[in-house]
Amino acid sequence: MAVYTDVSAEDLTEFLKGYDLGPLLSFKGIAEGVENSNFLIETGSGRYILTLYEKRVKKDDLPFFLGLMGHLADRGINCPLPVKGHDGKALRTLAGRPAAIVTFLEGVSYRRPTATHCGALGTTLAALHEAGKGFTLARENALSVAGWRPLAEQAGERADDVAPGLTIAIRNELADLETHWPRSLPAGVIHADLFPNNTLFVGDQLSGVIDFYFAANDAYAYDLAICLNAWCFESDYSFNMTKGRALIAGYRAKRALNRVEIDALPILCRGAALRFLLTRLVDWLNVPHGALVRPLDPMEYWKKLRFHQSVASATAYGLVE
Amino acid sequence: MAVYTDVSAEDLTEFLKGYDLGPLLSFKGIAEGVENSNFLIETGSGRYILTLYEKRVKKDDLPFFLGLMGHLADRGINCPLPVKGHDGKALRTLAGRPAAIVTFLEGVSYRRPTATHCGALGTTLAALHEAGKGFTLARENALSVAGWRPLAEQAGERADDVAPGLTIAIRNELADLETHWPRSLPAGVIHADLFPNNTLFVGDQLSGVIDFYFAANDAYAYDLAICLNAWCFESDYSFNMTKGRALIAGYRAKRALNRVEIDALPILCRGAALRFLLTRLVDWLNVPHGALVRPLDPMEYWKKLRFHQSVASATAYGLVE
Repeated sequence: MAVYTDVSAEDLTEFLKGYDLGPLLSFKGIAEGVENSNFLIETGSGRYILTLYEKRVKKDDLPFFLGLMGHLADRGINCPLPVKGHDGKALRTLAGRPAAIVTFLEGVSYRRPTATHCGALGTTLAALHEAGKGFTLARENALSVAGWRPLAEQAGERADDVAPGLTIAIRNELADLETHWPRSLPAGVIHADLFPNNTLFVGDQLSGVIDFYFAANDAYAYDLAICLNAWCFESDYSFNMTKGRALIAGYRAKRALNRVEIDALPILCRGAALRFLLTRLVDWLNVPHGALVRPLDPMEYWKKLRFHQSVASATAYGLVE
Repeated sequence: MAVYTDVSAEDLTEFLKGYDLGPLLSFKGIAEGVENSNFLIETGSGRYILTLYEKRVKKDDLPFFLGLMGHLADRGINCPLPVKGHDGKALRTLAGRPAAIVTFLEGVSYRRPTATHCGALGTTLAALHEAGKGFTLARENALSVAGWRPLAEQAGERADDVAPGLTIAIRNELADLETHWPRSLPAGVIHADLFPNNTLFVGDQLSGVIDFYFAANDAYAYDLAICLNAWCFESDYSFNMTKGRALIAGYRAKRALNRVEIDALPILCRGAALRFLLTRLVDWLNVPHGALVRPLDPMEYWKKLRFHQSVASATAYGLVE
């Protein structure tokens, strides 16, 4: 959420000679994105986002992410469209880093989305799943069930420093999820991080989906479970069933959920909660002493996980049978 | 150079109800400004900069700064124009902080301005001085000669930690400047911080002057001296007389320099160099151990000051008699 790499107007002007975008009219470093440096630029042909990929994004994954955005944008999803240079390539180098220019999308991210917004999100999520079909590249989801044990081991017993008993609770939950995780759900490309800050709205209209840097191949219903976690809890961690109902109904308006997916929703929600609990926990335990940026609270997802553990069926999320 | 205060889309939407700017279409925190939080916002009526004033700007000075921008913009200077709310006021409150919306200006800031850019800057600086006449508010320049001794005392003998001998060198220079500082030069409103990063260019056209938060009443020629320091040295601290000549000639094309101003240029340049040496020195000495943001190097201005001490007359800066 900062600009890590400094770019001068002179260097950017030179860089833009590789594109057909017209003269540079404005550029501002923006506080956005997951540990990348982002700039909002304006040229003679419009507005764009320039991203310099910092170390957290694997360079080998960039063709998948950029190719996916192009594939989805071509199929009507409002997502950033990577802009190709004269040489036909979207992935280039600036200031010694992999860099890409994508189209700018209007809209703002709501911090407290309403049920109306949840409904729009559901429909867009399903449309994204449908549009992703036919994309030829694939990427394993490093943060699905197989990736959780290494994270849990990285945290180890220090989890108890965050909350007493957390270590054993995580161990038990993990063992249970590994045993019962559904392995044959309809799958394809999922966003995998579609939090409110990665969607844009103009009024109540969902105008854009951004930040595809966790996208991977996985179960579609797992993406829905991530959204139920990220969009439908109130600030007191209570689940808002009106929002859940709107999200699921919005999704089903565009893509049907089969019986197996519906039955799997509670365990998928538990898995999604554990995934964010674990990555936040590791970040929390590894933050340097005295750092200025406070990492996100892992306990938020522990509380959400506790809710999901109490759920008997998908109707608890507002799914109408 | 960061966003210090977080603003939600919901809060900004509410805030914009006090204006007649149309619906919120986009907003991004931008890495810009002197310890204020800045957002580039787009509404139905265009693009604007929203600034939340953090503690370093005195609230009592804001009517001067905002009023000055309005005064200058009304007189043809390309500077941000404060936007008034329904109640006729430009200065409002958001997230508990004084806040204002100003118009957005196109252009980019060059890091290595050419002589052509220096010429354009000179003409704009003179135009700004002329346009400032008739502005009814006044603000004493806290960072003119009377303000330097307190800064030097704040640094004290710790200046020697930065460079051995710096304490006594500053003391001698300060005593000399206090004795010989010109007190009866033509004066009015000056920008007082017109560095390259506070000007915007589209190609070679100067498209905007921004960041008026050091503006004050002082000698016009002192503003020119600040620009000679900020624009006309190369990265090896050598003075580029081609740039100096362009800057001074550009200035004189719009506002005449009288004999006293011309003769005072060398001492004014020394004073300007000492002013930035001292503020940078105090920042440098007060930066918390292990801070992420490295303050600007005070020694840059010590080297510039040494050059000015060797100057016999304004012709050394490229002024043509």
